[in-house]
Amino acid sequence: MSGNSIGQNFVVTTFGESHGVALGCIIDGCPPGLELTVEDMQRDLDRRRPGTSRYTTARREPDEVRILSGVFEDKTTGTSIGLLIENTDQRSQDYSNIKDLFRPGHADYTYQQKYGLRDYRGGGRSSARETAMRVAAGAVAKKYLKQVHGIEINGYMSQLGPISAESVDLNEVEQNAFFFPDASKLEKLDEYMRDLKKSGDSVGAKITVAATSVPVGLGEPVFDRLDADIAHALMGINAVKGVEIGDGFGVVTQKGSEGRDLMSPAGFESNHAGGVLGGISSGQPIVAHIALKPTSSISVPGQSMTAQGTTADVVTKGRHDPCVGIRAVPIAEAMLAIVLMDHLLRHRAQNQDVVSQTPVIGMK
Amino acid sequence: MSGNSIGQNFVVTTFGESHGVALGCIIDGCPPGLELTVEDMQRDLDRRRPGTSRYTTARREPDEVRILSGVFEDKTTGTSIGLLIENTDQRSQDYSNIKDLFRPGHADYTYQQKYGLRDYRGGGRSSARETAMRVAAGAVAKKYLKQVHGIEINGYMSQLGPISAESVDLNEVEQNAFFFPDASKLEKLDEYMRDLKKSGDSVGAKITVAATSVPVGLGEPVFDRLDADIAHALMGINAVKGVEIGDGFGVVTQKGSEGRDLMSPAGFESNHAGGVLGGISSGQPIVAHIALKPTSSISVPGQSMTAQGTTADVVTKGRHDPCVGIRAVPIAEAMLAIVLMDHLLRHRAQNQDVVSQTPVIGMK
Amino acid sequence: MSGNSIGQNFVVTTFGESHGVALGCIIDGCPPGLELTVEDMQRDLDRRRPGTSRYTTARREPDEVRILSGVFEDKTTGTSIGLLIENTDQRSQDYSNIKDLFRPGHADYTYQQKYGLRDYRGGGRSSARETAMRVAAGAVAKKYLKQVHGIEINGYMSQLGPISAESVDLNEVEQNAFFFPDASKLEKLDEYMRDLKKSGDSVGAKITVAATSVPVGLGEPVFDRLDADIAHALMGINAVKGVEIGDGFGVVTQKGSEGRDLMSPAGFESNHAGGVLGGISSGQPIVAHIALKPTSSISVPGQSMTAQGTTADVVTKGRHDPCVGIRAVPIAEAMLAIVLMDHLLRHRAQNQDVVSQTPVIGMK
Amino acid sequence: MSGNSIGQNFVVTTFGESHGVALGCIIDGCPPGLELTVEDMQRDLDRRRPGTSRYTTARREPDEVRILSGVFEDKTTGTSIGLLIENTDQRSQDYSNIKDLFRPGHADYTYQQKYGLRDYRGGGRSSARETAMRVAAGAVAKKYLKQVHGIEINGYMSQLGPISAESVDLNEVEQNAFFFPDASKLEKLDEYMRDLKKSGDSVGAKITVAATSVPVGLGEPVFDRLDADIAHALMGINAVKGVEIGDGFGVVTQKGSEGRDLMSPAGFESNHAGGVLGGISSGQPIVAHIALKPTSSISVPGQSMTAQGTTADVVTKGRHDPCVGIRAVPIAEAMLAIVLMDHLLRHRAQNQDVVSQTPVIGMK
Repeated sequence: MSGNSIGQNFVVTTFGESHGVALGCIIDGCPPGLELTVEDMQRDLDRRRPGTSRYTTARREPDEVRILSGVFEDKTTGTSIGLLIENTDQRSQDYSNIKDLFRPGHADYTYQQKYGLRDYRGGGRSSARETAMRVAAGAVAKKYLKQVHGIEINGYMSQLGPISAESVDLNEVEQNAFFFPDASKLEKLDEYMRDLKKSGDSVGAKITVAATSVPVGLGEPVFDRLDADIAHALMGINAVKGVEIGDGFGVVTQKGSEGRDLMSPAGFESNHAGGVLGGISSGQPIVAHIALKPTSSISVPGQSMTAQGTTADVVTKGRHDPCVGIRAVPIAEAMLAIVLMDHLLRHRAQNQDVVSQTPVIGMK
Repeated sequence: MSGNSIGQNFVVTTFGESHGVALGCIIDGCPPGLELTVEDMQRDLDRRRPGTSRYTTARREPDEVRILSGVFEDKTTGTSIGLLIENTDQRSQDYSNIKDLFRPGHADYTYQQKYGLRDYRGGGRSSARETAMRVAAGAVAKKYLKQVHGIEINGYMSQLGPISAESVDLNEVEQNAFFFPDASKLEKLDEYMRDLKKSGDSVGAKITVAATSVPVGLGEPVFDRLDADIAHALMGINAVKGVEIGDGFGVVTQKGSEGRDLMSPAGFESNHAGGVLGGISSGQPIVAHIALKPTSSISVPGQSMTAQGTTADVVTKGRHDPCVGIRAVPIAEAMLAIVLMDHLLRHRAQNQDVVSQTPVIGMK
Repeated sequence: MSGNSIGQNFVVTTFGESHGVALGCIIDGCPPGLELTVEDMQRDLDRRRPGTSRYTTARREPDEVRILSGVFEDKTTGTSIGLLIENTDQRSQDYSNIKDLFRPGHADYTYQQKYGLRDYRGGGRSSARETAMRVAAGAVAKKYLKQVHGIEINGYMSQLGPISAESVDLNEVEQNAFFFPDASKLEKLDEYMRDLKKSGDSVGAKITVAATSVPVGLGEPVFDRLDADIAHALMGINAVKGVEIGDGFGVVTQKGSEGRDLMSPAGFESNHAGGVLGGISSGQPIVAHIALKPTSSISVPGQSMTAQGTTADVVTKGRHDPCVGIRAVPIAEAMLAIVLMDHLLRHRAQNQDVVSQTPVIGMK
Repeated sequence: MSGNSIGQNFVVTTFGESHGVALGCIIDGCPPGLELTVEDMQRDLDRRRPGTSRYTTARREPDEVRILSGVFEDKTTGTSIGLLIENTDQRSQDYSNIKDLFRPGHADYTYQQKYGLRDYRGGGRSSARETAMRVAAGAVAKKYLKQVHGIEINGYMSQLGPISAESVDLNEVEQNAFFFPDASKLEKLDEYMRDLKKSGDSVGAKITVAATSVPVGLGEPVFDRLDADIAHALMGINAVKGVEIGDGFGVVTQKGSEGRDLMSPAGFESNHAGGVLGGISSGQPIVAHIALKPTSSISVPGQSMTAQGTTADVVTKGRHDPCVGIRAVPIAEAMLAIVLMDHLLRHRAQNQDVVSQTPVIGMK
């Protein structure tokens, strides 16, 4: 399996470049009988879409997804599901200025060196544009997880630059352009972003994503632990530089007597572990955090070089997200959903006898 | 492929429990013609081995690895390599006290629920004992990477509880029991650990691992980016709760103008990215950090429950590492080596034409 | 990886049903820098297309393929290639008559039982319509194999019902509607097919496919031998019931002294092995034969049952190929190309050092 | 995943050479709770073992398998199962005569060319010796399939050289050294083999293997059809040159009205299809046939060449099976079991909702 697929039993394979004809994906292994229409995917696609607030890029892409196969009379048939989003915004823009330029912080240089050539228009395959298909595929996983197991997946921005959420109210998240769960900070955020845009600079962010009602038992040690596969999926999102499960880097200074989650027949008394013990879900909420670097496309000049080996100064004009982290919330949710879905299927492949026969021990 | 394998072209599959007959692994896909003897693996196995300092468990396991196949006249033949370490320390200890007990912070509960039964002796498969085979397999990867590409992989402890390394001298790392790169902190570490042992508690740690001389071009976007696969491999090590590449969570508060690595024909001017751009190695050192939680086996009592659903108090007797992070250094190195090796083979599978024909652009 | 993907380093994933919106595929792992346009695929798509002779179904589908990604300025970029063929012939035909009917010889019953529901229009996913995408993907592999290694892949019909080719002239193959290599039998074939159509019946066929100039060394023992993967790919074509490599079932009555291919520094003296020794290509032509069962859709009535559990008589009206084997030639070529391409990449992943350094022994 | 693994959810990975230290395998994904002891594997290992009759090689290998992990208190735990067979017959024989010789019909030449070096002792990895581990792993699959689904897998020799079984009595199969199901032919077989040995030659064979009580629904179209994966597994056995499902090559001359299996609510009226329709099991017995070429090691001289590029005459001394097909029966059974086991797990991963909720339609 090559790098454009993720999963083993629920497999998502994608294609598409920023300025190509279309983006697409194939979902293989989706259980049959799931009711599915484009509406199920459109909501999350709209949440991810640029141009929804004044802090995301103004590029207008309707991102209308079409189901090309695998669904019959609005139900999945168990055969491979083909999804397509046509790129409507392929303005025949002039890209000759970046054709031979390796923009700092971007993948221009590494793509060129790896493949010997590259589609330089808007970053080509390395653009975050491809994440639209992840969101579409994730929506299918989300729907199954919710319907069959009651699993809910929610993400939010926990920190933008220096501004952290001090309280988390999930109801607030969809009420503002930042996916921010703490309404008391919105004004401060607004002001911060206005100053940032003025300076032509960008900033990093921290996103939290959690899943509740996940059954005990998901995860395949020793290498495909649930947390390892979550780390793989989340670190694979553009601009992500760090992944934490539960207390994350907080454990470095913890004592053993502080960090373990005590348990009783009534359940766990805390969730330092973030819902994963020994690489297997514990029944508690799965909690992950990711760090996203600031957008590299900024109007503050930066030194770089050309394909011809000369020095060049780079200034990115045009409108770009000053914080890519904002749009990452639905992407992170999608990736978590895909991982949980895949592990649900992997778990029941091996352990159906246990799932259907053994009474679950403890944990009232 | 199920969860006990890692890699796609360089595939490592392991088996073995803490108190089983033996640990073993199969390496499939190793290039032929590599000189290989047990000595190549023994050094790292000895570095990982418990009982090498007074701060790691006193369990004595010689961890002598045997090569069972895939090597002929001291050279790899390209066929699958079988490795075996017999467990010599299988004292017929009495485990009846933990047979029905779910120790907090351990995988007892999740293994029991996932599989319906478990080998409870010493944690069975969930014990860090299995990492011995990772270290053996990693040593094979390390040797090839070093010999064919001059790649060096080095790890060290960058923080133990509250004590951080303030300088990094790789020559110091092997000179002390902590794999600590800052000799000026050794006395403090010693004192801290003595107090910790006295209190019967444990503490977390942060490990840094880096690879130099990695060629440009490794990594398979969009899902199997090099950093995503590194995150998968490192988060899959026992007790790891966080993974960072380059600046990691530091990017959250960074400005775009601060965090990008400017470049010129002479090379990059900094390495905030940790050697990966767009999921592909940039030629700079690959740098990753991991957070390890404190050992869960401590003598401070903690509440738990039994398989029968009753409440129980857990006190772990016997000698356990007060900081599992210490032994994690060679394990992290091994996992990074396995990922780089796999990606080197994946890269040349697709891009051999580029590798052998195209001159590398820029970066004198 | 689920069942709609084939290959490990050159991975082809497909979707699409007979009467769905479109057929599509993603090729992941294609080497960059290959010149590629739709014309490269169109020729083989036209060869496979129904309605090209009076002995194949009259359904008119232009089968025009579009490249949606992975190609920039007519060269592959190394990123995933998206291909699409829209179904233009989705007449809103009335399928209510077969909605609840399990046609004998078809996959209606097994799909229904496996998935609990099915797209019954024209056989849905089980229709040979999906093989169009295999042919498109195979054409990409063919082009690379030809360009980089001079590998040629040719198929032909070696037997149709009772009529066997007694001589093989590859130049003849494209000159007749049967892909038949023996012009002296064309009249007989024509007559046989006319009678067959009159009787409303169908017949089986044997197809031979061969590849020349394949380098020594392709194949990954012990399970992914080249012949094993060829068998997988060819047996996976609709209606195929048997696969042979080289002498195939002829070896059952052979003596060891007859069947081995003697060799000298000048090369092999025969090719009983069909180009594979110990699962690895020997440098001789790869030769495979497949048996295709007669079309199950015939107008001779046959007993079956309904989803409601009642008996029913089935008569298929409309025009169907009286011999599905005819159109199988380009499909078999495509599958062989995909397998060789995948193994070429797998081989060089592991053995690039051998490939680039070791002089080939013997075999002038 | 590289070539020494087979399966996706039930994954078998093997290592070991003919004259190496040991053979081993790892089974990953085996359901937990299965009672398993070495006795479960030993019976089939003994059936495969050379030296059990005067028509198989006299090499004495006890082939005693050890379980190293994954089984606790005689039950599988769901973790990876390590199996080991030590090679006790590693006589320090002199192999210098074949060191530089490419024996015709063997894999000497192709291994040397692929890997640049090879373990020439007894054929190394290319020896049929490695199939011992397949038989051990297959026995685990067989036990689960039998216990949970009542599936029975039986193989027999249907033809040896010119002598075909005219009747099939499974009770006869284990009563003679040929696994022959037709007792009336035993004398003739005996005579034929005696003459063959005298002449120093060898002969081919045809083996049939069948599975009964296989549930409807196994198989993952379009590429991993059940028959395609069976073909992969069986063609991957040493010396196999052809695979048939059901009527196999007999379909070439069949009419559509003859070859389809008519059905009624009482079931299918015939089994031309060999239990697979559209790549999915139909509930009827799965029937496959394989063709095995004659042993290449014979005492009839044959021309070959050396690694130095000179001509050489090859005469194999020592005792070798005059018909490798004889020992292939338990191997073919094992491979079929592994494929069915893997597909059972794959099927329930995707379709558990169907499996547990939908009543099976028809087929009383």
